Amino acid sequence: MSEKLEQLKERLGEVSDIGRAASVLGWDQQVNMPPGGNEARGQQLATLSKIAQEKFIADEVGQLIDDLKQEFAGDDSDDAALIRVAARNYDKSKRVPPEFIEEQAIVSSKAFEAWVEARKKSDFSIFRPHLERVVELVHRYISFFPAGNHPYDTLLDDYEPGMKTEEVKAIFDGLRPKQVKLIKAIAKSKQVKDDFLFKKFNEKKLNDFGVNVITRFGYDWTRGRQDKAAHPFETTFSVNDVRITTRYEDDNPIAMLFSTMHESGHAMYEQGVNPAYDRSPLGGGTSMAIHESQSRMWENLVGRSLPFWEYFYPELKKTFPAQLDGISLKSFYKAINKVEPSLIRVNADEATYNLHIMLRLELEIGMVEGTIAIKDLPEIWNTKMQEYLGIVPPDDVHGVLQDIHWSGGSIGYFPTYALGNLVSAQLWEKIRKDIRGLDDQICKGDFSELLGWLRKNIHQHGHKYEPQALVEKVTGSKITPEPYVRYLTKKYSEIYGL
Amino acid sequence: MSEKLEQLKERLGEVSDIGRAASVLGWDQQVNMPPGGNEARGQQLATLSKIAQEKFIADEVGQLIDDLKQEFAGDDSDDAALIRVAARNYDKSKRVPPEFIEEQAIVSSKAFEAWVEARKKSDFSIFRPHLERVVELVHRYISFFPAGNHPYDTLLDDYEPGMKTEEVKAIFDGLRPKQVKLIKAIAKSKQVKDDFLFKKFNEKKLNDFGVNVITRFGYDWTRGRQDKAAHPFETTFSVNDVRITTRYEDDNPIAMLFSTMHESGHAMYEQGVNPAYDRSPLGGGTSMAIHESQSRMWENLVGRSLPFWEYFYPELKKTFPAQLDGISLKSFYKAINKVEPSLIRVNADEATYNLHIMLRLELEIGMVEGTIAIKDLPEIWNTKMQEYLGIVPPDDVHGVLQDIHWSGGSIGYFPTYALGNLVSAQLWEKIRKDIRGLDDQICKGDFSELLGWLRKNIHQHGHKYEPQALVEKVTGSKITPEPYVRYLTKKYSEIYGL
Repeated sequence: MSEKLEQLKERLGEVSDIGRAASVLGWDQQVNMPPGGNEARGQQLATLSKIAQEKFIADEVGQLIDDLKQEFAGDDSDDAALIRVAARNYDKSKRVPPEFIEEQAIVSSKAFEAWVEARKKSDFSIFRPHLERVVELVHRYISFFPAGNHPYDTLLDDYEPGMKTEEVKAIFDGLRPKQVKLIKAIAKSKQVKDDFLFKKFNEKKLNDFGVNVITRFGYDWTRGRQDKAAHPFETTFSVNDVRITTRYEDDNPIAMLFSTMHESGHAMYEQGVNPAYDRSPLGGGTSMAIHESQSRMWENLVGRSLPFWEYFYPELKKTFPAQLDGISLKSFYKAINKVEPSLIRVNADEATYNLHIMLRLELEIGMVEGTIAIKDLPEIWNTKMQEYLGIVPPDDVHGVLQDIHWSGGSIGYFPTYALGNLVSAQLWEKIRKDIRGLDDQICKGDFSELLGWLRKNIHQHGHKYEPQALVEKVTGSKITPEPYVRYLTKKYSEIYGL
Repeated sequence: MSEKLEQLKERLGEVSDIGRAASVLGWDQQVNMPPGGNEARGQQLATLSKIAQEKFIADEVGQLIDDLKQEFAGDDSDDAALIRVAARNYDKSKRVPPEFIEEQAIVSSKAFEAWVEARKKSDFSIFRPHLERVVELVHRYISFFPAGNHPYDTLLDDYEPGMKTEEVKAIFDGLRPKQVKLIKAIAKSKQVKDDFLFKKFNEKKLNDFGVNVITRFGYDWTRGRQDKAAHPFETTFSVNDVRITTRYEDDNPIAMLFSTMHESGHAMYEQGVNPAYDRSPLGGGTSMAIHESQSRMWENLVGRSLPFWEYFYPELKKTFPAQLDGISLKSFYKAINKVEPSLIRVNADEATYNLHIMLRLELEIGMVEGTIAIKDLPEIWNTKMQEYLGIVPPDDVHGVLQDIHWSGGSIGYFPTYALGNLVSAQLWEKIRKDIRGLDDQICKGDFSELLGWLRKNIHQHGHKYEPQALVEKVTGSKITPEPYVRYLTKKYSEIYGL
């Protein structure tokens, strides 16, 4: 290995070590930390993030990358990919002044507090001045980068490397009318019953059931663990230590199962990355959408499918005989797939979820273009909810104040959720072609061939390919809404007898 | 505040942040980490330790300290103490070349593996060549420092700032004959019964009992937590996040209670340090011996006292009625204070414990002076065990291979355990003078005045005073063995009717 490459890898390895150390501190903060620990923990995380940034944007690193870019030009090796991704990250990091990052941290922290306060009183006007500052900073952030076709491209690129606003718009434009049409058709059909899902379910038993399910999926417990946290998430400390959290909700107990499956999908992705990429920018999943495709696949394409429950329902019924007394497999399957326009994104079903995202994307683009004033957000929100889903929030908590993202300056993130759904179905069509008898395997609780396929085609590559390139490499086409529409239409035609 | 002082504090704050982040990673490693995580975690810890060292020994830091030393000369303020401690640490760190630290890490890691292997086969010869290398490095380490009266001073100083080998020897020389005499007198008396302590005790109930005890002591759960780990320890992430671990041993269940009290003593010390010292070299306990004085005080002076059990024994009996059926308070009290020469230091009672330490100190001094060859250690060990305790280990696992310390290069640490015992009794005599009716308070489960005294006289000062200075400030005399001898003599005269 070239001496310079070795130097670069060592430096990037250190930066990665610091980032992963910060992840351990973040995980601990959400899973274990006593309340008193908060202030010092914030300080520790700020110091780690500052040092990682200093180490990364040092001039020697830039020099090494420049020299190596020439040495590896036109090369398709892992090393060339590593240099490419490092160069990309370096360029982005270098453009943003450290003082800006500091200012953004302060503004976000205040905006977050205001958001919490605004939610308590369900009063958008408390959050409004803070969101205005956040959006100002977003405009400044965009100004550090060369002007692209659309200012939103810069934001999107942080979550979906290489993805353009025009592409996302085109995809969503193709998707929207078909999803709206499907939802309208479902609305005219007889609604399914799901009241039994909201009985009391013992938390410990539900948790154990979830553990059993993801063990069957192939989540590797020797390289991970599951804890309780207020919000479910996945976090990576190395390819050999990938952890997830779960939670029990009194008013929706069964959600715990699907949340566990969802996070295990993220985790199995991270556990499946080529171990040689660890401590380098090639480690970890390549984008938020690809990540979400994995979590949604295990949660929905697998976890809300009939074959899955053919295997697991008898066991669930044995675990909860009182709650599921007299409920057939078919009734249970229909209940967990009930479609109903609802106000809160995170609780939305598969058929309506993407519409929540499209609404947010339109607002974000409006804010970035300056065509939507922050003060008008609640009204526009409510109008669009009426238009897409036929319901209007009774207050801002159930409307424009529901998501944490904007308070933290995360504008450009939302579309990745919907893209993840699309990719999950697009991969699924290919998987069904490649794996004969997939349904039979799932009916038997055997997920090994499925996980093997994902490892080989998606997981192992880590950050080597950008999301569009990866999807095209695997399915022969860039991200497209058709498979998802076909998937929804088929599934709900059966369930609702359309 | 002077601008230079502010700069120094900020830099030291960063170094502290990195160190505390490393502590979180270390805690997680022992409490939560799945087995797969080990390799990456070692790498992450190595990176953090390297960066903290780089940041600390930077020339700017030395320059700031030099300038400030003059500005604050002769000053008794906290800032002057901070500069004094920082200067001391800087000088020590600067003398040790980074390559040496790296070499030591590698040698220790191999020595640790060899020690584990040697223990499995109870064969010292497997560990011997590694210990020889460790001791070689210890000699090199000593050579980086100016020659003192004794080469062992350099090692001791890392754990007990300012303490000299001659002082420790004099203290131990005063102590040894009296402890040996006491043990001989006990050996001639009728032994107490303790068989009921080794029945089965439910782990969960024992744990809850321990939690209840240390809650009464004053361990602050809003600024800490307790978890299970293979080895009990205390660790500090900030003055407001001080955690402990405990363990259950099948063959000695009741030990869990005393271990919990012990660690809570360490933790309450750390929770009681002046919060203004956080993120600075004044944060945390001042030395290992003072730390141990706190843990041993709560474990032994309080936790193995008759007043303590007058309050807690009825509750313990209610919790474990079958195990303690027919056992009176007095019988229980005697059982948990049984004296019996034994082979393993960590299981030793209060009367014999220090002799285990004296043996180790003599061997360490011999190794450092070069008067004891490593190959002769097992034999010398066994000879001294016969001399001090009248028993001889049947094999090396129960003898020279029992402690982890030497494998990690920790030579100079052992004496702090015995010094901690002495300090605990020395403080206790002063406390009994200052707090009227202490026994009555303890009989009622009221520890608030005791904790208040410790907070005021010991805890709050953090690292401001060196151990000998602190003990003298509080008790009017430097560390001396007399109070401990008086304490043991009184206690065991009653128990054994001497």
